[in-house]
Amino acid sequence: MAKEKKQVERITARDADFAQWYTDVVTKAELIDYSGIKGMFVLRPYAYALWENIQKELDTQFKALGHENVCMPLLIPESLLQKEKDHVEGFAPEVAWVTHGGSEPLQERLCVRPTSETLFCEHWAHVVHSWRDLPKLYNQWVSVIRWEKTSRPFLRHREFLWQEGHTIHATQEEAMAETEQMLEVYANFCENYLAMPVVRGEKTEKEKFAGAEKTYTIECMMHDRKALQSGTSHYFGDGFAKAFDITFSNKNNQLQHPFETSWGLSTRIIGGIIMTHGDDNGLILPPKVAPIQVIVTPIAQHKPGVIEAAESICSRLKAIGIRTKADLSDQSPGWKFAEYEMKGVPLRIEIGPKDLEQAQCVLVRRDNGAKEFITLDALETQVPIALDAIHDGLFQKAKKNLEENTFAATTMEEAKQIIETKGGFIKTMWCGDLECELKMKEEVGVSSRCIPFKQEEISDVCPCCGKPAKKMVYWGVAY
Amino acid sequence: MAKEKKQVERITARDADFAQWYTDVVTKAELIDYSGIKGMFVLRPYAYALWENIQKELDTQFKALGHENVCMPLLIPESLLQKEKDHVEGFAPEVAWVTHGGSEPLQERLCVRPTSETLFCEHWAHVVHSWRDLPKLYNQWVSVIRWEKTSRPFLRHREFLWQEGHTIHATQEEAMAETEQMLEVYANFCENYLAMPVVRGEKTEKEKFAGAEKTYTIECMMHDRKALQSGTSHYFGDGFAKAFDITFSNKNNQLQHPFETSWGLSTRIIGGIIMTHGDDNGLILPPKVAPIQVIVTPIAQHKPGVIEAAESICSRLKAIGIRTKADLSDQSPGWKFAEYEMKGVPLRIEIGPKDLEQAQCVLVRRDNGAKEFITLDALETQVPIALDAIHDGLFQKAKKNLEENTFAATTMEEAKQIIETKGGFIKTMWCGDLECELKMKEEVGVSSRCIPFKQEEISDVCPCCGKPAKKMVYWGVAY
Repeated sequence: MAKEKKQVERITARDADFAQWYTDVVTKAELIDYSGIKGMFVLRPYAYALWENIQKELDTQFKALGHENVCMPLLIPESLLQKEKDHVEGFAPEVAWVTHGGSEPLQERLCVRPTSETLFCEHWAHVVHSWRDLPKLYNQWVSVIRWEKTSRPFLRHREFLWQEGHTIHATQEEAMAETEQMLEVYANFCENYLAMPVVRGEKTEKEKFAGAEKTYTIECMMHDRKALQSGTSHYFGDGFAKAFDITFSNKNNQLQHPFETSWGLSTRIIGGIIMTHGDDNGLILPPKVAPIQVIVTPIAQHKPGVIEAAESICSRLKAIGIRTKADLSDQSPGWKFAEYEMKGVPLRIEIGPKDLEQAQCVLVRRDNGAKEFITLDALETQVPIALDAIHDGLFQKAKKNLEENTFAATTMEEAKQIIETKGGFIKTMWCGDLECELKMKEEVGVSSRCIPFKQEEISDVCPCCGKPAKKMVYWGVAY
Repeated sequence: MAKEKKQVERITARDADFAQWYTDVVTKAELIDYSGIKGMFVLRPYAYALWENIQKELDTQFKALGHENVCMPLLIPESLLQKEKDHVEGFAPEVAWVTHGGSEPLQERLCVRPTSETLFCEHWAHVVHSWRDLPKLYNQWVSVIRWEKTSRPFLRHREFLWQEGHTIHATQEEAMAETEQMLEVYANFCENYLAMPVVRGEKTEKEKFAGAEKTYTIECMMHDRKALQSGTSHYFGDGFAKAFDITFSNKNNQLQHPFETSWGLSTRIIGGIIMTHGDDNGLILPPKVAPIQVIVTPIAQHKPGVIEAAESICSRLKAIGIRTKADLSDQSPGWKFAEYEMKGVPLRIEIGPKDLEQAQCVLVRRDNGAKEFITLDALETQVPIALDAIHDGLFQKAKKNLEENTFAATTMEEAKQIIETKGGFIKTMWCGDLECELKMKEEVGVSSRCIPFKQEEISDVCPCCGKPAKKMVYWGVAY
């Protein structure tokens, strides 16, 4: 067990220094490598395999709802970006500009897409003419660039991978229903695939997407009680359609503007998975998206029959669709335990000579270390049950963290005391004024996370100004 | 049938003006839209679905051979691009340069990747230390930018989608075997999935990839008898490893440089599919990658039972994994015939009241228009057979075109006469000198396509200079 300890010691303890622990995990679990450009990272095979599993599930869900994938250009002419005023104001300060093609200066500079609303609008202006052309339900899986000053693996990249859905509809109602539906897709995905409980809500005017009429969001709480915005869905009304002169003739043969939405989820969610579930031994991956769901580790593998038994377990589990690996290398069992704990493999199966005699093997859960002996006959029934239990265990633990660290406050002092002593989410009433939102930031140090769909009435007045309250808001310190 | 004719009339006849026919097809089949930037195109849902089918199959094959997907940054610092001399000379003239992040000029300009050898090398220098770390078999699915002066949908984009495989090995032999293996993967994919026969061979010194020791290629002949380079696989030796200072300690504990390969196939292949198989009615898609493999068209659909029968055919075929669509819209059968012929759907199934009486339906092949009545009972057995027959038919037709338009020549005059009267591929012997290769370009108007693996001895001497011949070469006019 000496080697196991040695490897584990290289990680900072999670509660000693959460930021350093995070950096240790993303490098030691071989998720990320640094490139020569600040904020641009290499996604190594293990991280990309995780992203592929996320993609595969979301893509299947998008398509089942009628969405089609497309691919828009990487570059946006400056004049196109400028067509919608709020949008360009929001994004222009942080785009990367292409100014030369080969050795020649370009006549107009082009930005690397920070998001693609303008490109979808340009295309739709070409192809949408009649109500028969609507709706268009499009999505693309691409990378985008936002030239941020600070960077952090997964959480804040200058380039990140995401999907951006863009849809265009004949009616407001349809577009709004799409906006709500896609937020629910994200919420369901986070909770039921990533074991991350979410708070669903609407962003305030200040926090909404540049150019949107409404932005819906799911907010997750990380282990350190900070907030992570994990997916957003925007309703644009007909603002973009007007700016880009997109019209269609409706069923009454009248020309009108259509209504749009967009929605996105990015590799940022991998940072969320790490910070929600990880522990002092490294990553813990939710079973439904883990690249390796089960690691089979032979014990005393030089003894007759052990390697064959490990291989047999591996192939039996693969046959029922479980992503399984048997590590038959000459490393010690202790080294292997530590290695796959670091990589967050949800379930370990140990099999040695004594187990063989009893026709059994050992299941060890990554989330709580619980050991269970099962007969080899029961492999196909027990392993899926164990994986489901791990998912549920992770979800319950994260939900407990969220619930125990969400506090109601009725005064600024109370809010401040909570954030200084406990952290977490604070619920307060709010009058709806930007001034009070800014004051919460300045005096309490929190930003509004969302106006949750599930409203409560904590008091009658805004804790900042004492005026009548309109809504309850979640506040927090955010990544 | 008036509407059918109307739609078909909008396409230029293929043999009247091949270039215009091509442009008509890519727009009318709704594959492409033009963006505001020359050479950057929108891939519309139908084109992207085709690319996804290509991706899915290749990705499965890559992974079965042990490759893992990763994602490298989009941008390359100028200093990094410059590390390998031949490579930078080849690519620097056609890269797009990012010079500003937000409102600030960058300290060093960054190019949008035209290909990613330099980025893989930078990463490998970080992670390859011992023979235990080798090989690394990586691939990424991304877009790249090459700032070309001319552009053409699919064939020459300033931005195109592709996969780029990059591998690094302990020995020359292993790297060379990988280079050969991946060319064979491409060749097999083209022939057995896209129904495009290929000529396998090696590029000449002049035509090989910038920085490679050897470039292998598959060359396809289009309907107009021009060549399309359809996939390439490069062997780098240890040149890149030396330039980027990548070393590993081998089994004898000596420090040495590893050996690298790269290989790529792009959305260009979609242009190849169009130009190989298409006809005067539009696209013809090879069944194995067609987004819709079977279109079910009801005849007299207002008659009782017809729509239900069409839906039943559709769901029965979907149940056995065939991508099927039933068009139950109120357009006329003639309109539907023309629409799905334009879109190249390989097989049409017609069902009307008379067929229902006989418990039969009609299969109509897109490639040759052949009609066949089958009993509805036989649907699940006959449709896969018909799809295979269409694949074979397309392959045989393309193979005939390739074979009938490949000519041996022993003199420059003969070569010139062939290219002027017939076009196609010309086989000649070659002394191996660059001068003679340039002379073929200047005097005959052809470039070397490859030194085919299957060599023949057409004569003893080079037709350009009369010196002893070393190799047989394929020449042609290329896209």
